[in-house]
Amino acid sequence: MSDIVVTLPDGSELELEEGSTVQDAAYAIGPGLGEDTVAGVVDGELVDKADELYDGARLVIVTDQSDEYRRVLRHSAAHVFAQALQRLHPEAKLAIGPPTDDGFYYDVTGVDLDEGDFADIESEMQAIVDADYDIERVERSREEAFELYEDNPYKQDVLNTEAADDDTLSFYVQDDWQDLCKGPHVASTGEIGAFKLLNISSAYWRGDEDKEQLTRVYGTAFERESELEEFLQMREEAKERDHRKIGQELDLFSIAEVTGPGLPLYHPNGKRVLNALSNYAEELNLESGYDPVETPHLFRTELWKRSGHYENYVDDMFLLDVNDEEYGLKPMNCPGHATIFAQKNWSYRDLPVRYFEDGKVYRKEQRGELSGLSRTWAFTIDDGHLFCRPDQIEDEINTIIDSILTVFETFDLDARVALATRPEKSVGSDEIWEQAESQLKAVLDSQGMDYDIEAGDGAFYGPKIDFAFEDALGRNWDGPTVQLDFTMPERFELSYTGEDNEEHRPVMIHRALYGSYERFFMMLTEHFNGKFPFWLAPEQIRILPISDDQIGYAKQIKNRYLGEFRVDIEDRSWTLGRKIREAQEDRVPYMLVVGGDEEEAGTISVRDRKERERQGVSVETFREHLRTEESEKRAEPDFLA
Amino acid sequence: MSDIVVTLPDGSELELEEGSTVQDAAYAIGPGLGEDTVAGVVDGELVDKADELYDGARLVIVTDQSDEYRRVLRHSAAHVFAQALQRLHPEAKLAIGPPTDDGFYYDVTGVDLDEGDFADIESEMQAIVDADYDIERVERSREEAFELYEDNPYKQDVLNTEAADDDTLSFYVQDDWQDLCKGPHVASTGEIGAFKLLNISSAYWRGDEDKEQLTRVYGTAFERESELEEFLQMREEAKERDHRKIGQELDLFSIAEVTGPGLPLYHPNGKRVLNALSNYAEELNLESGYDPVETPHLFRTELWKRSGHYENYVDDMFLLDVNDEEYGLKPMNCPGHATIFAQKNWSYRDLPVRYFEDGKVYRKEQRGELSGLSRTWAFTIDDGHLFCRPDQIEDEINTIIDSILTVFETFDLDARVALATRPEKSVGSDEIWEQAESQLKAVLDSQGMDYDIEAGDGAFYGPKIDFAFEDALGRNWDGPTVQLDFTMPERFELSYTGEDNEEHRPVMIHRALYGSYERFFMMLTEHFNGKFPFWLAPEQIRILPISDDQIGYAKQIKNRYLGEFRVDIEDRSWTLGRKIREAQEDRVPYMLVVGGDEEEAGTISVRDRKERERQGVSVETFREHLRTEESEKRAEPDFLA
Repeated sequence: MSDIVVTLPDGSELELEEGSTVQDAAYAIGPGLGEDTVAGVVDGELVDKADELYDGARLVIVTDQSDEYRRVLRHSAAHVFAQALQRLHPEAKLAIGPPTDDGFYYDVTGVDLDEGDFADIESEMQAIVDADYDIERVERSREEAFELYEDNPYKQDVLNTEAADDDTLSFYVQDDWQDLCKGPHVASTGEIGAFKLLNISSAYWRGDEDKEQLTRVYGTAFERESELEEFLQMREEAKERDHRKIGQELDLFSIAEVTGPGLPLYHPNGKRVLNALSNYAEELNLESGYDPVETPHLFRTELWKRSGHYENYVDDMFLLDVNDEEYGLKPMNCPGHATIFAQKNWSYRDLPVRYFEDGKVYRKEQRGELSGLSRTWAFTIDDGHLFCRPDQIEDEINTIIDSILTVFETFDLDARVALATRPEKSVGSDEIWEQAESQLKAVLDSQGMDYDIEAGDGAFYGPKIDFAFEDALGRNWDGPTVQLDFTMPERFELSYTGEDNEEHRPVMIHRALYGSYERFFMMLTEHFNGKFPFWLAPEQIRILPISDDQIGYAKQIKNRYLGEFRVDIEDRSWTLGRKIREAQEDRVPYMLVVGGDEEEAGTISVRDRKERERQGVSVETFREHLRTEESEKRAEPDFLA
Repeated sequence: MSDIVVTLPDGSELELEEGSTVQDAAYAIGPGLGEDTVAGVVDGELVDKADELYDGARLVIVTDQSDEYRRVLRHSAAHVFAQALQRLHPEAKLAIGPPTDDGFYYDVTGVDLDEGDFADIESEMQAIVDADYDIERVERSREEAFELYEDNPYKQDVLNTEAADDDTLSFYVQDDWQDLCKGPHVASTGEIGAFKLLNISSAYWRGDEDKEQLTRVYGTAFERESELEEFLQMREEAKERDHRKIGQELDLFSIAEVTGPGLPLYHPNGKRVLNALSNYAEELNLESGYDPVETPHLFRTELWKRSGHYENYVDDMFLLDVNDEEYGLKPMNCPGHATIFAQKNWSYRDLPVRYFEDGKVYRKEQRGELSGLSRTWAFTIDDGHLFCRPDQIEDEINTIIDSILTVFETFDLDARVALATRPEKSVGSDEIWEQAESQLKAVLDSQGMDYDIEAGDGAFYGPKIDFAFEDALGRNWDGPTVQLDFTMPERFELSYTGEDNEEHRPVMIHRALYGSYERFFMMLTEHFNGKFPFWLAPEQIRILPISDDQIGYAKQIKNRYLGEFRVDIEDRSWTLGRKIREAQEDRVPYMLVVGGDEEEAGTISVRDRKERERQGVSVETFREHLRTEESEKRAEPDFLA
């Protein structure tokens, strides 16, 4: 028998006999590890410990101490749910039930469920956990599998699309129940320390709106009860902070039935926040030498064919026919910017040329996936594209990363960084891809940054550095990107005249500081719980006259701040207590209370969202304080000294 | 015989016998006027002096002293052209040949023409003018007309679409030549004092891209040679200032074949001007209490059906199919704004609610009509919509007119004002229209403004006040509008709670200060001949080091102005003379010349576009001067004192 070699996380190589499994490899490292093995990660994919290894594989052993363990546990919890459901409702048909980032779901049909059924199902699940059934992997022939699922069109569909004629298929068996499944799973149901069913929604089979609708039951599971409790608490907090809820409370935006799904309307309060964000991005861009441009939303598809978007992206594009020619709404801003660059003759002395645009793009996401501002059809990218000489790449990427880190700091967000490499659907030669990936790696390494490799997650035209925002609740959101692109300059035949008087291809870099305004705005709303920093707040100051007698004085004060700050008067005839409560609910950073005393002295009383108060402040002193807050863009301001 | 009554321009009424013509009415006013009558304007339409009047008509008598006379003269010049063409090329077929605002054209076919043929045609035209043929109107039956035009499908088409079976048709005859024509015309060809053929283009029959292409010959005519000369000079100047030419010289924008027609790309220089314009509009809007909003470009057509746009505008809309539902790109921003208003409950105390948005709209103009930025598919309106109580209309319209007049002043433009009334395609009851029209009239009258009535030119949902910009060359361009709308609030069921606790409909007012950014930008480019005022100039300051030795000092100076002003360095190794010439060509408002003396003294030499120069200026003194210019937004700044 010949040998195979696999690579371990520390870079060392392990020689094994052909046919060795993940667990065999663990035993070869050490008997303790062999015994503790729950599963493996082979070339990025979570697999069963019984899976055979192949030559050249990158292998990580998963034990109950690994990050991946929780994913395995949750997958098993999905099975426990399914078994419990079928014990209570034998007529229930199972589709698929994978783990997710924070739990699991199972798509089922043939049974009428609502959240009122959760208690019964959960006690049945607890019984299965308490029984601590072994979870065993069993291989069956395709024929056998079809027989087992003769009444289940979903499992049949899986068998038809995922298994070849002569494959054997893995099933996981616990007690008298089994499920067609690639695994991996924990050793027995008793390992599931804590679980909970969370909610029900519906989903199309295969995510295809033309197919049947199934009932999707979400749940989660943890090793320990305390972890579940912490999770549930965080989930409550996230619900409280849901941007759709706060969006309504603060009147930020709406998505109206009559206007179409995924097409948000920004109300004045939301648009004010967006404007402040846009102005800040513009400031950073102008400082880094970017020039503003503007491109339309509609282009002939000829452009998208040239850029490669048509080939790679057509299913997500909004297409239309105009005078028998095909046009498309732009899903990206880059081809427009490349077209502007192409209009002029450039010298090596002119580079880098850097364009930026708040460009609204249109992508046809599946309707079921649209939700608030997190997934929309229309969203605006704070898009930048620069064209540089190869010798300028490193400097430019370093500058971009500096701007991005400034953004993280300004908004008090933590960063996660990943290098995303060549995806399956892509354009360009292997050589170009390798060159680009190694250049991005070099910059990240030279900056001493901690980053993951996301294999296959690059753009179709080049590799990218993806930044994720980690918000106040510890959740991650897609954020800024830096993408290197040797392909589009080829396709658009971009060139500059070098010092040698010859024509050369520039390199194109795509970058965004926020990513999408929609997602960034949504994330900030939840991150700050609607309490936007002063410089972002839609209403920055609310003047509260103690009685109607001070409305005149309130107007004087308002006029002194108007034009510089966003200021309003609460002129309803309420008690001061109610006025304060309302302003607090509206998350207004500063309340200026003005009564008879203040009017007489020509001063104001200042109150902030943290209920700190200072009386007898002069209008000018407070103006200076506000100017500092506005210019420093501090996420958590000090109170007026 | 019964009598009819017509109204004269001074409001007086004239009683005439039924069957009286325009000329009969003129004779009834006075024998001199009767003799001088060239034509008439009846209910806004220019007609022959032989046309019969009807009861209730508003009548203006046209003599050779009237504004309309030139239009009549040019129409006759079109006939003289056509007669001359057919004398030289009997095979030429005539389509239509109307007068235009600055001349006439005739669409012809069956003959190969280029501008090299103009001299011959013009001498033949001169012969016809010199012969001073009488121009006579002759009535013919439809049958006779068809016989005359048996070889001319265009005239046949006119006969088919415009004449009923038993109509008689008017022909105008001069010498042995005649043309099917409604007129009016001057009395004889000798009245045409001066004329010139200008250029050739092509046009589709009926403006329909699916029909044949014809040759369109443009010309003009005047009473006097001196007027023609003045016109030609102005035309030369206009050509020099053509925004497409300046747009290329200053690298402002482009319209690329690959991106589609009518879809401009703004380059950095153009986008900087647009940004300055947008910031100024925002400033005016915030001062008048407008709130920013943002709406997408794509909406379900359900929205457009609700608003009435679908019914009235569908041919101009870009439509597309998304998951078997019809969507449309927005041709207007109003329905989106109405939808935002509809999301909230309003009290009478909240009104007026005023929204503004730089909203890019899409309208499918015929391709042949697209030209530079003057006609585009995509254009951005500085759009504002406000919702108010009926008792607030007059105040609001007055405020809007004040803002509009401020814009005219800032850009050094003259205004022409017109009240546009109900068009043929429109929604809403007669009563609503009359109410709206009389309210707009009342405001214009109370402001003591001079205005024309443009009958039938209103929006489909309401009457409007249209402002035209008159530029430095005396040309008029569509500009700001104020539109009153009682209809859309009905269609969107908008309401507010009144003081009486009942629900009421607000009134909607549509307004723009510029109109379309594209047209305004185009017009300003030509108005200023590319010499944008300091605050608008894409590049405000260019530093010219006398030799390469001062590049370091130039960079210091640049850094001191950067962030506040748009400043660049000319760092090519040219002579100072060439650097100045180049900056002059690029219309940069200020050149800062820095040589050894300046570097030593730490000063700058300032030179403006008018070649005024001041030496030994301190950086701070000049900064103060620039700040004043920027904040005063003066179109013609004083030079540094």
